[in-house]
Amino acid sequence: MTDTVISSASKEVVIGFDRPFVIIGERINPTGRKLLAEEMKNGDFSRVESDTLAQVAAGAHMLDVNAGIPLADEPAILAQAIKLVQSLTDVPLSIDSSIIEALEAGLAVYEGKALVNSVTGEDEVMERVLPLVAKHGAAVVAISNDETGISEDPDVRFEVARKIVNRAADHGIPKADVVVDPLVMPIGAMRTAGRQVFRLVRRLQDELGVNSTCGASNVSFGLPNRAGVNGAFLAMAIASGLTSAITNPLESEIMQSIRAADVLTGNDADCAKWIKQYREPVPEGSSARRRENRRRGASST
Amino acid sequence: MTDTVISSASKEVVIGFDRPFVIIGERINPTGRKLLAEEMKNGDFSRVESDTLAQVAAGAHMLDVNAGIPLADEPAILAQAIKLVQSLTDVPLSIDSSIIEALEAGLAVYEGKALVNSVTGEDEVMERVLPLVAKHGAAVVAISNDETGISEDPDVRFEVARKIVNRAADHGIPKADVVVDPLVMPIGAMRTAGRQVFRLVRRLQDELGVNSTCGASNVSFGLPNRAGVNGAFLAMAIASGLTSAITNPLESEIMQSIRAADVLTGNDADCAKWIKQYREPVPEGSSARRRENRRRGASST
Repeated sequence: MTDTVISSASKEVVIGFDRPFVIIGERINPTGRKLLAEEMKNGDFSRVESDTLAQVAAGAHMLDVNAGIPLADEPAILAQAIKLVQSLTDVPLSIDSSIIEALEAGLAVYEGKALVNSVTGEDEVMERVLPLVAKHGAAVVAISNDETGISEDPDVRFEVARKIVNRAADHGIPKADVVVDPLVMPIGAMRTAGRQVFRLVRRLQDELGVNSTCGASNVSFGLPNRAGVNGAFLAMAIASGLTSAITNPLESEIMQSIRAADVLTGNDADCAKWIKQYREPVPEGSSARRRENRRRGASST
Repeated sequence: MTDTVISSASKEVVIGFDRPFVIIGERINPTGRKLLAEEMKNGDFSRVESDTLAQVAAGAHMLDVNAGIPLADEPAILAQAIKLVQSLTDVPLSIDSSIIEALEAGLAVYEGKALVNSVTGEDEVMERVLPLVAKHGAAVVAISNDETGISEDPDVRFEVARKIVNRAADHGIPKADVVVDPLVMPIGAMRTAGRQVFRLVRRLQDELGVNSTCGASNVSFGLPNRAGVNGAFLAMAIASGLTSAITNPLESEIMQSIRAADVLTGNDADCAKWIKQYREPVPEGSSARRRENRRRGASST
């Protein structure tokens, strides 16, 4: 049992082995979104606002916020985006940047316990990011690559993850606050990409006892019907032990797959969430509808 | 590596760990299909014919044939159904009955190496079914329950599977010809039903080295949006080691999930089947379409 608690000023989300899967909305990210990048650079955050509301309405438990725009003042833009998003929703955030100053600026304005995305196994990166994470009492996403690059061998990536967990401990960060990203490669380019992740997340849970997350959409890069691949990938990764993912909650197929996986791991008690989401509408005037009305009346809701 | 080879007079299907998942069409089964039962009993096999063609067209690699109709001459009807199905398609069959005389009648007319569905771990059943399987050189589905019933403990079910594999060996049936059914219970009734299956199929592959199959649809009994649950269940079971399933190939969500799982286990080489199935149509007159036409012309197809 390893519970990773992330919070906003008023709400906690827990990532854990025997808990419902945690969905971190990926949309607030200008990478590959030219229009959003241009708008954010010019101080127009209307799309950040609509992406926030839409993802939370679709069922995201957390939101990732990234402001990686070339030739822009990323620390200032990221801090501004985080303040805006926290004014709109109480779901906790993942503060996403590869620039230490941007992470600093984001953490400085964040209310609650953030998830810092991310640290790698590179010494220089660990020594800059981990003290910042420790200072703010945050949690951190640990990406399982280091100076030697991304190994195709999941057992090498496991050792990188172990190294980061140990280094985090040196900085006073408990392993419950390290969420490992096994790194998802495109299956179209690397036939073993799926099996690598399944093997790695299983070892992360069984041997290292840490939670995991991943950028799930990457697996289907270049393929048609990407949501179909992403949905199956998430179900398979959850069966292997994945406990959260940064993905697109606006894709109904992905959300259905995650909800079904929660049912099948036994983490949707009495299948209550599934039944509520997918219950067939009861026709007006039917005896089932009358029973339903009586039931609702009886429980006085 | 354990390859279970099933064949018709002219076609082989191989169930194995590093092979595409084998889909056994479940539709030719009068259980719970009143109209089909009535028709088959009266010698009308038109629906068996249409179910055969539709399932093969939808991508079934094998078909299960069951003629379990109360108060009917099951051996005669099963033999007749098998002859008819084999006259319509060359996909290999699973001969499905709990009555030994029906299995005998089915095997007597079957051309090729059939999959006999099924034997349990009950002594009396093993001693009647296994000699028949051995005599015909068939393969057999081993259901992991015995005289004591169906255990909720997957490790007890594993021991039942081991007992059947050993008993089959006593009858000269190699373990490659024993395909274990872990028994899928409804998740709505038993919260651990999914985890039980995932754990059991993993042990079946890792420790016993046998292939597995299951009646996948049972898991969603009583729930809304059953195809959504079944699709995620199959992807998760495949990630855990399941190598075939008796399911409904006419459900496009189930087929998509299995095809995606093949991509993600690396068993759809170059994602070729996935791309062929889900490639976006290229608009007429577009430059992409012109390139496509040139490509097709060049490869002279």
